Amino acid sequence: MTDRPHTPTLDKVRVPADLRALSDADLSRVAHELRAETISAVSQTGGHLGAGLGVVELTVAIHAVFDTPRDKLIWDVSHQCYPHKILTGRRDRIRTLRQKDGLSGFTKRSESPYDPFGAAHSSTSISAGLGFAVARDLGGDPGDAICVIGDGAMSAGMAYEAMNNAGHLKKRLIVILNDNEMSIAPPVGAMSSYLSRLYAGAPFHELKAAAKGAVSFLPPPFREGAKRAKDMLKHMTVGGTLFEELGFSYLGPIDGHDMDQLLAVLRTVKARADGPILIHAITQKGKGYAPAEAAADRGHATAKFDMVTGAQKKAASNAPSYTKVFAQTLTDLAARDDRIVAVTAAMPDGTGLASFMERYAARCFDVGIAEQHAVTFAAGLAAGGMRPFCALYSTFLQRGYDQVVHDVAIQRLPVRFAIDRAGLVGADGATHAGSYDIAFLANLPGFVVMAAADEAELVRMVATAAAHDAGPIAFRFPRGEGVGVEMPARPEPLEIGRGRLVREGERVALLSYGTRLSEAEAACEALSAHGIHPTLADARFAKPLDRDLILRLARGHAALITLEEGATGGFGSHVAQLLAEEGVFDRGLAFRSMVLPDIFIDQASPADMYATAGLDAAHIEAKVLAVLDSGSLSKRA
Amino acid sequence: MTDRPHTPTLDKVRVPADLRALSDADLSRVAHELRAETISAVSQTGGHLGAGLGVVELTVAIHAVFDTPRDKLIWDVSHQCYPHKILTGRRDRIRTLRQKDGLSGFTKRSESPYDPFGAAHSSTSISAGLGFAVARDLGGDPGDAICVIGDGAMSAGMAYEAMNNAGHLKKRLIVILNDNEMSIAPPVGAMSSYLSRLYAGAPFHELKAAAKGAVSFLPPPFREGAKRAKDMLKHMTVGGTLFEELGFSYLGPIDGHDMDQLLAVLRTVKARADGPILIHAITQKGKGYAPAEAAADRGHATAKFDMVTGAQKKAASNAPSYTKVFAQTLTDLAARDDRIVAVTAAMPDGTGLASFMERYAARCFDVGIAEQHAVTFAAGLAAGGMRPFCALYSTFLQRGYDQVVHDVAIQRLPVRFAIDRAGLVGADGATHAGSYDIAFLANLPGFVVMAAADEAELVRMVATAAAHDAGPIAFRFPRGEGVGVEMPARPEPLEIGRGRLVREGERVALLSYGTRLSEAEAACEALSAHGIHPTLADARFAKPLDRDLILRLARGHAALITLEEGATGGFGSHVAQLLAEEGVFDRGLAFRSMVLPDIFIDQASPADMYATAGLDAAHIEAKVLAVLDSGSLSKRA
Repeated sequence: MTDRPHTPTLDKVRVPADLRALSDADLSRVAHELRAETISAVSQTGGHLGAGLGVVELTVAIHAVFDTPRDKLIWDVSHQCYPHKILTGRRDRIRTLRQKDGLSGFTKRSESPYDPFGAAHSSTSISAGLGFAVARDLGGDPGDAICVIGDGAMSAGMAYEAMNNAGHLKKRLIVILNDNEMSIAPPVGAMSSYLSRLYAGAPFHELKAAAKGAVSFLPPPFREGAKRAKDMLKHMTVGGTLFEELGFSYLGPIDGHDMDQLLAVLRTVKARADGPILIHAITQKGKGYAPAEAAADRGHATAKFDMVTGAQKKAASNAPSYTKVFAQTLTDLAARDDRIVAVTAAMPDGTGLASFMERYAARCFDVGIAEQHAVTFAAGLAAGGMRPFCALYSTFLQRGYDQVVHDVAIQRLPVRFAIDRAGLVGADGATHAGSYDIAFLANLPGFVVMAAADEAELVRMVATAAAHDAGPIAFRFPRGEGVGVEMPARPEPLEIGRGRLVREGERVALLSYGTRLSEAEAACEALSAHGIHPTLADARFAKPLDRDLILRLARGHAALITLEEGATGGFGSHVAQLLAEEGVFDRGLAFRSMVLPDIFIDQASPADMYATAGLDAAHIEAKVLAVLDSGSLSKRA
Repeated sequence: MTDRPHTPTLDKVRVPADLRALSDADLSRVAHELRAETISAVSQTGGHLGAGLGVVELTVAIHAVFDTPRDKLIWDVSHQCYPHKILTGRRDRIRTLRQKDGLSGFTKRSESPYDPFGAAHSSTSISAGLGFAVARDLGGDPGDAICVIGDGAMSAGMAYEAMNNAGHLKKRLIVILNDNEMSIAPPVGAMSSYLSRLYAGAPFHELKAAAKGAVSFLPPPFREGAKRAKDMLKHMTVGGTLFEELGFSYLGPIDGHDMDQLLAVLRTVKARADGPILIHAITQKGKGYAPAEAAADRGHATAKFDMVTGAQKKAASNAPSYTKVFAQTLTDLAARDDRIVAVTAAMPDGTGLASFMERYAARCFDVGIAEQHAVTFAAGLAAGGMRPFCALYSTFLQRGYDQVVHDVAIQRLPVRFAIDRAGLVGADGATHAGSYDIAFLANLPGFVVMAAADEAELVRMVATAAAHDAGPIAFRFPRGEGVGVEMPARPEPLEIGRGRLVREGERVALLSYGTRLSEAEAACEALSAHGIHPTLADARFAKPLDRDLILRLARGHAALITLEEGATGGFGSHVAQLLAEEGVFDRGLAFRSMVLPDIFIDQASPADMYATAGLDAAHIEAKVLAVLDSGSLSKRA
């Protein structure tokens, strides 16, 4: 293709071992070309650009110095892994990133031996790296464990738990803190301020000299003895850091874009580290691509774009996104209710709360990547008399599950959970799918659990949640745009536990929970051509169930099919439990529950994913036909 | 009763406000008598003794200085809350602790306004306290938030997340670090070493003088101005602590058993704190009761005991505990397989791994109260070629749920989860119930999910897990003693996904998953008197299901009843999903799923809890009779 960059040095690198034959000057050239190749690829695929551009030099330096894949390189979150993929035998497929049957947007064990531990959620790398280090010392897989973790990821308790354990175990473990003063949004919290102070305390130029000095130690590795090397490492630190207090050696801050410095430091560490060490590298998210550097989010995630101007090629949309509808509704309600407050875990943009925050800065709390704290902090706010909305993606709410059970549900505190990205999510793939929230919430006593069938329903559910002080309440909604329905002028709260009949039919009833309603309507349209006219209802609530509606549907039809964008154990299971207890199955009912299948679904377009999941109109239609065709039912009908 | 202590001063204290009329000397007397009353009460009820004895002075001092319940006192974990309960209007019921219809062993919002935020799981207090502090400043409930958190609880990431956020928000918030160098077991991790160094760095006597000096500032509160007070606080610190780096003022360490010092420090803090402050109090778990002080666990949890000797009155048991059977089996297997390693999160005794650790110290890892890390660390160990067993209580596994999904299941890593205390747990009540693990594991693709019906089955399941390298595998087992069955001499791994028929009968089939098998057998015995002979099977696996067995039972009987000690969404739901998909319900099947009811069940004896849950032999028998009596079925049968 004509817009491919000229990359003569990079072209010689098929796998990381090829880097180890190059001169340091050539490694700098590789980095330069790798940056151009990354920009070129992402301009075609869209994806996470800024994070990768920030670690181009780091990626080249680590693979040049360490013996990957024998040494285990673990990218935290792994938004930043595209340059790594280009260097590790996947360059020929890099323009399939985040597409069906293409490369994952994240590291993935099944994709490459150079991805020893996949990631997508934040702050797991130190735990995993420590596992590798301990396994190695017990006779498992040999090699170093090198974890690259961002400053934003350091706000998560999990990273702290891992450092606390690593500092105690004292195994050789290399952690590179990739400090770009940005996670997804600008990072918040005391740790972030602390890192800034560390950075301010030690200008690069002194450290650069120290690092250059380090090169003279090599080779041979132990020319002047281990003691001297340790002293040198000690002198390179700014002294008495929080990391040292947790048992790590601390080395930095260093310039993460200065290849000479990176190579020198990594070579020293490789030769001499004998316990856990943290290398503090300062990088710039979006580095080297002007449009990304200039963007507020430093090119965090992008659609396909024009390489010259950086202009993104987004498809026009007619309907507002669910996220925007949620945030706008909450902001409107907050104008009339000053007890409404909002909590986000490092996702003010992703959850739409940025707009709420603009209007009500004092009532909106970004707690950092810290979902456990987010949930219990919201519980405390509720106990203190506020009406907190805790806005999280379904997949990240998993991080606060115990807090949902222990701090919210058992205490019946009225925390409102706004669960975004519920169901399948497209290009982010299996790690970001919101598959489990229905199942893990609907069996908690006292919880109200809702799902929005469309954006107008979402508005009503936000209002319902705001008005519900009796206990915890959750509403889920999907990624992407609404279906284009008319919006309620002034939303009235829904009656708790009451569904709605959408169309009255016969023989078979479809009972949809959440987003599958529009596909069910399409299926009904198609079925009418066969002379089949199903009844269709929107359950709205997985808890409490609308018993009257469900039993009416079950008793008035030969078949009842539930629909949901969630795994087994959720809405359909609770309906089945009700039907079983009521003895409905005793007399025969062709009951089916259409749920997400028992597989992790890789990235693809949403339409492709729904087809894979068997949850689109065609599959619903086929299921109705199959049920009506089944011998026992034809006899009864 | 004759063994009640003489408590003339304590007798004057009905509620904390009564403390505020007493002299400092009288407060010391109250503390002395409160300790005696606590020992006396726990000698009769059993429960958590050591933690309460360690905070007697702290409890009196906080309630004397602060305006509870307007000021919110939040006990982390709340094992240490018995003295607090005695002082807050619950003395007359203190000898009902942990008994059915009695006081909870933990703080509980529904029990008292003096319990503004209940707890039982660790490390939630700072998040909750920050919620109260923020709510207050936004016009919600007034008053201070005071969190008392142990040093062990500081190993959990959640506490760090909360401090990170509190240090950023800068709201007035009082955190008292109750440092007894013990959590449940001796604490581990770098943070623990760090706290010891802090303590070593500043002997009490100097600080005591400083604190005494502080009293002269009061009243009036601002005699010498806020600046002077701040300077004083600053001088009391050892300077530059990790807590200060996270944005807290640090004050300590102080002697947590010296009432004069405690009162002085708390009064100063109450008058002058203007942001988050951490008071580091050194206490002794079990303080003041020689048998507790002498015990290895400092009297952490105890049965009823003789007050004079400390001898515990435990009922004799014939069968070994499930915990011991698990640990012994794992230790035996580890002798033949050096890839077996074990991970516990601060529960070496509770999970039985202490015995494994004695034998294989280098292969057993206590990571502290850090379940998120525990799970992903185990995933790293598995990726590095080991066979890790991650031993956690069901209720605490909730803390690592996202890690189970994201790091273990999606990557199909062979982590073995030994899930202890699955199901109802007795005196610890609702917060410790293991109700959800079946539901939240059985819908994860690729997971093998087992439950042991008895201790011999547990042995087989440990062996099955050890042999299973294809992906993640979990086995759950209950609290308490086994049922007394014969143990297999050399355990053979089970065939994955294969249940077993226990007794062949007719008309109705009982399909038990886990511990309810013995109750089901008792129900079958009772039913035979009515001439009813159910078939009984042990499913063993919730995933993968034994499809052949289940469909055979469904097709060969008029009724099928599943049994499990778990919430809706688990085993019974997966069985229902299979039966629905196979069209079994179309032709009629009296299907019932007996699960834990949709309530949180308060503490009681296990027998009482099973009766409340409707999961004992009597309820199983009644369910069979009801199903067979139902009109539609009698017609069919």
